[in-house]
Amino acid sequence: MQGTEIVGRVARLGRHSDSPDHYTRTLFTPAHRAAAAEIAAWMGEAGMTVRTDPIGNVIGRYAGASADAKTLLMGSHFDSVRNGGKFDGVLGILVPIACVAELNARGERLRVAIEVAAFSDEEGARFQTSFLSSRALIGRFDPEVLERRDADGVSLAAAMREAGLDPAAAPRAALDPSRLAGYVELHIEQGPVLLDAGKPLGVVTSIASGIRYLVRVSGEAGHAGTVPMSRRRDALAAASEMVLAVEAQCAAVDSAVGTVGILKVKDGTGNVIPGEVEFTVDVRAPDDARRHAAEASVLREFERIAKRRGVSAEPARGPHDVKGVPCAPWLQDRLAQSIERRTGAAAARLPSGAGHDAMILAEVTDAGMLFVRCGAGGVSHNPAETVTAEDAGLAADVLLDFLRNF
Amino acid sequence: MQGTEIVGRVARLGRHSDSPDHYTRTLFTPAHRAAAAEIAAWMGEAGMTVRTDPIGNVIGRYAGASADAKTLLMGSHFDSVRNGGKFDGVLGILVPIACVAELNARGERLRVAIEVAAFSDEEGARFQTSFLSSRALIGRFDPEVLERRDADGVSLAAAMREAGLDPAAAPRAALDPSRLAGYVELHIEQGPVLLDAGKPLGVVTSIASGIRYLVRVSGEAGHAGTVPMSRRRDALAAASEMVLAVEAQCAAVDSAVGTVGILKVKDGTGNVIPGEVEFTVDVRAPDDARRHAAEASVLREFERIAKRRGVSAEPARGPHDVKGVPCAPWLQDRLAQSIERRTGAAAARLPSGAGHDAMILAEVTDAGMLFVRCGAGGVSHNPAETVTAEDAGLAADVLLDFLRNF
Repeated sequence: MQGTEIVGRVARLGRHSDSPDHYTRTLFTPAHRAAAAEIAAWMGEAGMTVRTDPIGNVIGRYAGASADAKTLLMGSHFDSVRNGGKFDGVLGILVPIACVAELNARGERLRVAIEVAAFSDEEGARFQTSFLSSRALIGRFDPEVLERRDADGVSLAAAMREAGLDPAAAPRAALDPSRLAGYVELHIEQGPVLLDAGKPLGVVTSIASGIRYLVRVSGEAGHAGTVPMSRRRDALAAASEMVLAVEAQCAAVDSAVGTVGILKVKDGTGNVIPGEVEFTVDVRAPDDARRHAAEASVLREFERIAKRRGVSAEPARGPHDVKGVPCAPWLQDRLAQSIERRTGAAAARLPSGAGHDAMILAEVTDAGMLFVRCGAGGVSHNPAETVTAEDAGLAADVLLDFLRNF
Repeated sequence: MQGTEIVGRVARLGRHSDSPDHYTRTLFTPAHRAAAAEIAAWMGEAGMTVRTDPIGNVIGRYAGASADAKTLLMGSHFDSVRNGGKFDGVLGILVPIACVAELNARGERLRVAIEVAAFSDEEGARFQTSFLSSRALIGRFDPEVLERRDADGVSLAAAMREAGLDPAAAPRAALDPSRLAGYVELHIEQGPVLLDAGKPLGVVTSIASGIRYLVRVSGEAGHAGTVPMSRRRDALAAASEMVLAVEAQCAAVDSAVGTVGILKVKDGTGNVIPGEVEFTVDVRAPDDARRHAAEASVLREFERIAKRRGVSAEPARGPHDVKGVPCAPWLQDRLAQSIERRTGAAAARLPSGAGHDAMILAEVTDAGMLFVRCGAGGVSHNPAETVTAEDAGLAADVLLDFLRNF
């Protein structure tokens, strides 16, 4: 299929940016509304009836063979992080549209109706509202977020009104889950696993279980010249050992990852032994059992290190505590069968370390995910993020096969 | 001798502070000038002729038995770091004044003339001018510093004029080294060595050799959820290993110390693998040979760690590269003899990890230092810094014995 056209549309959509310098598209900005309009036009060209729902999602519908057919929902988001990559989210909108265009061109109707949802807000960069759109779709819209303000002091409610939406109507974005046959999301992998494996596509087995901690280490400040090494209770040396413990303990659990992304030395001065250090810990694994195992051994090591060094370590759980979401086995198998039929090779299966709208939809329906190989060493949320036209075309091929056999 | 009086004067002088909340006294502020006036008055009461030199040092002279006697210079500084300790510097002014007062009360004149110098600026907190006063005394005043400005934009030249000093005259603060018999500085230890050893006083063997580095570690940023542990080039994990290498390599060299006081993760975010980290390294040892040994093994470890982890580490030498200064052996021995005579116990000998005016004076004359035990666990540059009245009195006893036997 038309990989070049898909990649061309990714680039075209990427021109709708909040910034002239780099690609950033956040909820209800002029660039965001222009992107929504362009997506709606492509959905219309593909033979879909298009609506904008009360939270600004653009949803195209391609009816099934019979009027009482259930609906297979597909989609992803068209907002971005700041200075992000152009494939993130968008690819999972444009590939399904290309599939429907192909069906429509051939006059094919399937056993299910297809809806392609372009989610207005998943990254939540403008109002700190991650998964706003998919939460609204499953009836979990929280009206309190309407009062959140962006960096310029504009509230979400005001931004909705400016985009022609009624904030009071937002809860009516909820879908009736009993009409859904499932949810399938195609997404750029955002990591190097498929690239390393030499596979263009992969079936997602689960979306990661994750937890964040903020850890404060308190030792004893002192003069860098006068306190002998044996007498020190250096908070940074202790924290450094803990950073390495996060790395070692998470590497020891299959497919777990652990990251210290922020580390701050309080009142750091070149000639003072650090007395206090704070750092974050992000631990993820494909399922809750493995995440809990990695998390417990990290915390155990923190305690051991603190005790041995005579410092205190207080790990505080952050608000981000996400249960692992397994993808529905039957959807995994059907996606794998389509990959095998279209590529002639065994399908790769891999967990997703990043969160996706699929983990929200999974609360009300069976969810599956198809990953597309990420170029440029696997970088994402970055201008270098890329997918080849060949891989995009193959993804459309496989997804179409999956739909025809659904 | 009068330990209670000495400690009382430390407290009284500590009331002259730039801040009402804590003890901070910086060059040529009203508090600094008030402290200078009080020190001058105490010198006068002790029978000294007092002058203020062109850089604001207050110098009291107690003539020797003969007119052609050489001069033994003693002293320390009366400026402080921000939120510092009240004994730092000041003790090395007040104890010699107490000794001279005792000699004067008994009508004793010595084989040497004694000058007690209260240095106006050693910490250099206001204009970033460490050792300004002692440098001026040895003829190394740098006129360029007159243009340095404090946080309020006031230049050193303007501050001097406000204090009644002529900036153009500053170079005339230089002493004639041929008239000096030596320099002796008494100082609070600022570390826990004497406290741990149960010794009230100690003879300083040398002032530390030291070097600073700023190290930049560059790895590869990435998504905390999607990059497997084995694929990471995490700049913070690498830097953490380097922090521990500084600790281990310096601990392995006798009396060396190594400190990472500042560590910053560039653009640190909880869910992003750090791509770049900067940190400082401060390495000190009692002499250049040991400092170079510790420094070389730290740098070797950095290279090894960077290579193994696939990151780059660029250590840049800072401007702070201080050669180790041995104290004159004959002054060490005479100070040790006085300690042994007055306490009946063997004198402790220890290196100084901190810098002192003595290392500047050592460029033109023989220098010796006497350390006084630091209470409160050895903390200094901190409001908790303390010396007992008993130790202060013993220090005066020992110094007087040293002077009488000089």
